[in-house]
Amino acid sequence: MSKLPLRLLSTLFIASIALPSAPVAGADEAKPTMSIAELREMASSLFGTIPDKMPGSDQDTPAQIELGRQLFFETMLSENKTQSCNTCHRIDENLGGVDNEPTSPGAFGDRGGRNAPTVLNAGFHIAQFWDGRAADLVEQAKGPILNPIEMAMPNPELVLERLGKSEEYKKSFQRAFPDADGKISYDHVAQAIAAFERTLITEDRFDDFQTGDDSALSTAELRGLETFLTVGCTACHNGPMMGANTYQKIGLVNPYVNTQDLGVYEVSKSEDDKFKFKVPSLRNIGLTAPYLHDGHVWTLGEVVRQMAWMQLGRRLTDQEADDITAFLHALSDKERAAKQVE
Amino acid sequence: MSKLPLRLLSTLFIASIALPSAPVAGADEAKPTMSIAELREMASSLFGTIPDKMPGSDQDTPAQIELGRQLFFETMLSENKTQSCNTCHRIDENLGGVDNEPTSPGAFGDRGGRNAPTVLNAGFHIAQFWDGRAADLVEQAKGPILNPIEMAMPNPELVLERLGKSEEYKKSFQRAFPDADGKISYDHVAQAIAAFERTLITEDRFDDFQTGDDSALSTAELRGLETFLTVGCTACHNGPMMGANTYQKIGLVNPYVNTQDLGVYEVSKSEDDKFKFKVPSLRNIGLTAPYLHDGHVWTLGEVVRQMAWMQLGRRLTDQEADDITAFLHALSDKERAAKQVE
Repeated sequence: MSKLPLRLLSTLFIASIALPSAPVAGADEAKPTMSIAELREMASSLFGTIPDKMPGSDQDTPAQIELGRQLFFETMLSENKTQSCNTCHRIDENLGGVDNEPTSPGAFGDRGGRNAPTVLNAGFHIAQFWDGRAADLVEQAKGPILNPIEMAMPNPELVLERLGKSEEYKKSFQRAFPDADGKISYDHVAQAIAAFERTLITEDRFDDFQTGDDSALSTAELRGLETFLTVGCTACHNGPMMGANTYQKIGLVNPYVNTQDLGVYEVSKSEDDKFKFKVPSLRNIGLTAPYLHDGHVWTLGEVVRQMAWMQLGRRLTDQEADDITAFLHALSDKERAAKQVE
Repeated sequence: MSKLPLRLLSTLFIASIALPSAPVAGADEAKPTMSIAELREMASSLFGTIPDKMPGSDQDTPAQIELGRQLFFETMLSENKTQSCNTCHRIDENLGGVDNEPTSPGAFGDRGGRNAPTVLNAGFHIAQFWDGRAADLVEQAKGPILNPIEMAMPNPELVLERLGKSEEYKKSFQRAFPDADGKISYDHVAQAIAAFERTLITEDRFDDFQTGDDSALSTAELRGLETFLTVGCTACHNGPMMGANTYQKIGLVNPYVNTQDLGVYEVSKSEDDKFKFKVPSLRNIGLTAPYLHDGHVWTLGEVVRQMAWMQLGRRLTDQEADDITAFLHALSDKERAAKQVE
């Protein structure tokens, strides 16, 4: 124990809590067993970095992206003109592409049954929604607008009618889809939104580490990476998204207490799909509380413990859980994470 | 930010994490709005201290208590002689009267559906078990011994037969129940265990605070007490046990995701009792993870957030949740908490 006066020590303690997430390594802090080079090699082989282009983005024009951006923030897309895409998938600069609600209130205040997933990097996912029922961003974008407890538009025609009354939108659609002879279609609405969403790619410290920056991660984060790599998390959380590439059953070893939401089964009606969900990407997970498909878990340290118990039958020590949690925070978009700390 | 070298600062940071839970107040740390005297008055009127005698203990003799202690650790009380009361309700000196399992494996390895509650202070509760189906400690003690997925004894007679073969137990029962003419009854087994359990009373820093020690709680703990008193927790968590005196519905405002366990309804079959459980006592809550009747929540900070959301429809800020969590740790038995830190 330090011999400094308690008062000085405690002041320092408080000061140090307020440190941003930049690496801080104590002289006597436990180091991971693997070397940095070994950790990097293993990480790169199991994950890799977030690509700098999203599938399908080659065809996106600046005019489509700009129209998509307008539409993403357009409250006319909800029946009572209260909600836009951004109401639930908030891309405000200090947020993680979500509203941080357990489940989101729709235009008329009712909440859906599932947690709104982040729109950041979403185009890298195997499919859209927790159950993958939309193949891609275009198909996804068409859903919430017409969902009665989300944006609640009665039909696509009303969307087109509202947008068609705006001279500005008419011009934007003309620029974005010059071959459409000035006609606005629901498909174009979705295509433009998707084009904009394909620009929402994040950059984090873990990728800095993967690409060679030895100081990108703190010692605790490196320990967390090692624990993550060795306890079994990577069975599901792998690839550049660290997930989002397979469907897995929640409660594989120890059952999840929510037995009401049957996951992919509700789409496929196949027994094998009961309680299966798209494995969430862990990119930006530190920004997207609360957690799980039902948004029932508020803290990252808790969901780390719950997943280890449910999926791996493993009780993490506090050290292991804290280290993994520290590591997961290194997967947050650097700019957004910095804005959250301020 | 301090001007000390980063390396020294981080070493202090690590050192300060390892501090025991003794009060540490920073010079510039936010104080509660209420004065210490006001907090004490409000606390004393809503809670009060843990009594130093348990109801019914006046009749307990030292011989009964000693027999109860033996029986509490007696593995003969389980069919395959592997489990005692202490297997799930562990009173080892550094534990909180529980096994810290989500649900406890029984003699043959199967797990029950509910989290084993602490035996510490249990005799102060309105009734026993999560659903209150046993009126008192005597009735409770008879349950697990015969429960097929707990200690799994086929009938009380086998319990008496096993104990009756021991000369030592025969003498102990004779001393504890001199009027029984040397006969051992199942009721006496339960009475002795209950007599021992009535000695399991804890002492915590919060009671030191209530009885006049101004320095018993840290500033964070005082803030947590104030938050606890003002956000609505005391609607259910009141009285000396800070709970354990009423039955309440889990998911009062926002539903709990576990809809399989119907709580008191499973005993009463009354619609009003669906999802009702005995409100847990918060005494020693910091020692009794994991939490809730299904043991699904691993961390105290998480369950504080979940309860505020479910019962009060309130999202706590991180500061509020952290403060309440700090305060709840002041409800841990002083000796046991000290042993856990070591």
